[in-house]
Amino acid sequence: MKKNIEIRLAGFGGQGIILAGYIIGKAAAIFDNKFSTLIQSFGPEARGSSCSAQLLISKSQILYPYMIQPEVSIILSTDAFDRFGGELKSGGVMLVEQDLVQPEKVPKGVKLYAIPATRLAEEMGRKIVMNIITVGFFSATTGITSFEASREAVETSVPPGTEEINLKAFEIGYEYGRKLIEEKAKVIVK
Amino acid sequence: MKKNIEIRLAGFGGQGIILAGYIIGKAAAIFDNKFSTLIQSFGPEARGSSCSAQLLISKSQILYPYMIQPEVSIILSTDAFDRFGGELKSGGVMLVEQDLVQPEKVPKGVKLYAIPATRLAEEMGRKIVMNIITVGFFSATTGITSFEASREAVETSVPPGTEEINLKAFEIGYEYGRKLIEEKAKVIVK
Repeated sequence: MKKNIEIRLAGFGGQGIILAGYIIGKAAAIFDNKFSTLIQSFGPEARGSSCSAQLLISKSQILYPYMIQPEVSIILSTDAFDRFGGELKSGGVMLVEQDLVQPEKVPKGVKLYAIPATRLAEEMGRKIVMNIITVGFFSATTGITSFEASREAVETSVPPGTEEINLKAFEIGYEYGRKLIEEKAKVIVK
Repeated sequence: MKKNIEIRLAGFGGQGIILAGYIIGKAAAIFDNKFSTLIQSFGPEARGSSCSAQLLISKSQILYPYMIQPEVSIILSTDAFDRFGGELKSGGVMLVEQDLVQPEKVPKGVKLYAIPATRLAEEMGRKIVMNIITVGFFSATTGITSFEASREAVETSVPPGTEEINLKAFEIGYEYGRKLIEEKAKVIVK
């Protein structure tokens, strides 16, 4: 792993994207003794329901938690794509909610992976777990956090009594991502 | 309001304390055009289920999001109290989950307010809303975020379809805090 990894998470309120970032950050800290910080900033633009965060993962303690330019983006809404779609590094990885985001003008060389996370969550009868599906998808497609560490971070971060459905959601997202990778179904934007 | 306010939030995983911090930060940004940052840091100690965050609220943009010494603590577990109970400024405000925290050795001059948030949430039939009850309690006891801004932040931050129960939870927490203030039932540790 590189020394530092910068990850953008963005969507709309209620998708649970902050918890997703929290869990990924925790997984990174569990896995291989890494450090991470998760930061959200609010200014006068906080009215409305858009929602974003910056997650940094590092091999050493993080003194400055703001990102310079992300190498991974998790984008769960059209608004989020409009706002943050263009900032990704060339060669970076973009994960999008397939039914909610129409990725246009993705930066050159970006690897794009799409998952119908909301639909998969609805099929489980619990739309609220779409963020946990996304955590699994992130682990499988990027490899930044391992299956085991991510799973442990999910288990210890969700409300007591909901572990089972959330672990199931995590595994569904992971499996979806693993299959995309196996099938070499990733789209490389040229 | 002072120029900067530093708030510690701590509890165990699953209590939704990060979302509570997120909503309070958003409320501050909505209310009176303030700025806020919310940060969680994870190190190798992230195993287990403890969970904390630093929330800064300011009248101007925040360049350095780490707290120096909090003037408000929201403490939802015994572990969290052991770890963070001693750091509060003299004259600060500590909010605790009444049934989960036994506050001992609170710093001198701290105003302590307790709420049985978990029990109140259970009485609503949805234990998961205890964090939103806490947001209401924070607004009523500290006045740092207004009722209206906090309410709007709750409404735009919870999963679609759950607004009603969450707004109800917010109001229950607010009302509980307002009554404590009215009854001058606050305990000033000497």
